[in-house]
Amino acid sequence: MGTNVAPWKQLLFGAIEANSHLSHSSYFQLATIGFSGRPSNRTVVFRGFEENSDRIQINTDLRSRKIEELKHCPFSEICWYFSDTWEQFRINGRIEVIDASNPDQSKLQQREKAWFANSLRSRLIYTCPTPGSPCNNEQSNQQVNLDPSSGPVPEYCLLLLEPEKVDYLNLKSNQRLLFSSMASGAGEKSWTSEKVNP
Amino acid sequence: MGTNVAPWKQLLFGAIEANSHLSHSSYFQLATIGFSGRPSNRTVVFRGFEENSDRIQINTDLRSRKIEELKHCPFSEICWYFSDTWEQFRINGRIEVIDASNPDQSKLQQREKAWFANSLRSRLIYTCPTPGSPCNNEQSNQQVNLDPSSGPVPEYCLLLLEPEKVDYLNLKSNQRLLFSSMASGAGEKSWTSEKVNP
Repeated sequence: MGTNVAPWKQLLFGAIEANSHLSHSSYFQLATIGFSGRPSNRTVVFRGFEENSDRIQINTDLRSRKIEELKHCPFSEICWYFSDTWEQFRINGRIEVIDASNPDQSKLQQREKAWFANSLRSRLIYTCPTPGSPCNNEQSNQQVNLDPSSGPVPEYCLLLLEPEKVDYLNLKSNQRLLFSSMASGAGEKSWTSEKVNP
Repeated sequence: MGTNVAPWKQLLFGAIEANSHLSHSSYFQLATIGFSGRPSNRTVVFRGFEENSDRIQINTDLRSRKIEELKHCPFSEICWYFSDTWEQFRINGRIEVIDASNPDQSKLQQREKAWFANSLRSRLIYTCPTPGSPCNNEQSNQQVNLDPSSGPVPEYCLLLLEPEKVDYLNLKSNQRLLFSSMASGAGEKSWTSEKVNP
């Protein structure tokens, strides 16, 4: 285990592997703060980690409500429950939103790479009518063609969650571990862990 | 369907029934606002509806962090994903906390009834050392005896979530419905629904 690998990441990889036979094992719930100051919570799909990093990748539509919510409050908590191994990861951190208007070329490249990692069917979702807007059946039935070699559409957005705290619970072994990060020298993070009551 | 039955409730009963072969189908994620103003999110168990009502029952430990969080901000959003039928319910509302100090006798009776609806094993959880506190192995190994006829221990707490908005998404039929409640005469709620883009 390299010194840069967060200790909870090994546990998470183990859970992903052990539950990979369940298609819903890559789904988790992402909580944000809504406009009214009330919590907001929805299911999203894990799109892997950013290369050489702890940051968790999520795809979303620029027109979805969570984008506006994250502009007001960039903090989020993931709750990821693995139904076969009875493990839960609560991952708290700040989310960076990367859309087409990002001034950083390397971030735009990262967004493009994430776009092409999606199936063509997943990419088509971003050409659908505005999510959450009143349904107009004619509009919904419109056929859109998308060239497989075309780069990301403007509606496609990459979210990167930078974990700061991870609360791990194993309901089979009845163990719970709290992982906390601290910024150490040279911009690197270091992690501490504590065993707590479940 | 009686006039008092919320329209989303029939959809929810359908999903519960269709996914009942999966033990995790009664689990959902409950988001609250944490102390720092950041979102907080964890898995909890559905304990049915309050009798003749839309209110959702959840059990929790009085010593868990969500109790303090709910005192500061009583609002919550449930995200309930049904993995076999690909249905998601986002249920937003206010939570009432009913613990042993509640001055209302009928509420204390409701708490007692909910306590006895739990298995003996579930009841024992509330006699465990404080959740989230540093783990002391000696303490954890203590054997506690609980008389099956004993009423709720002080640590046992009943939460009641009163739904105000329900966002229903069906990923198989690709349909999404928003349900909103309004207070009508005589303290009753009425519900409206709107079909929106998924």
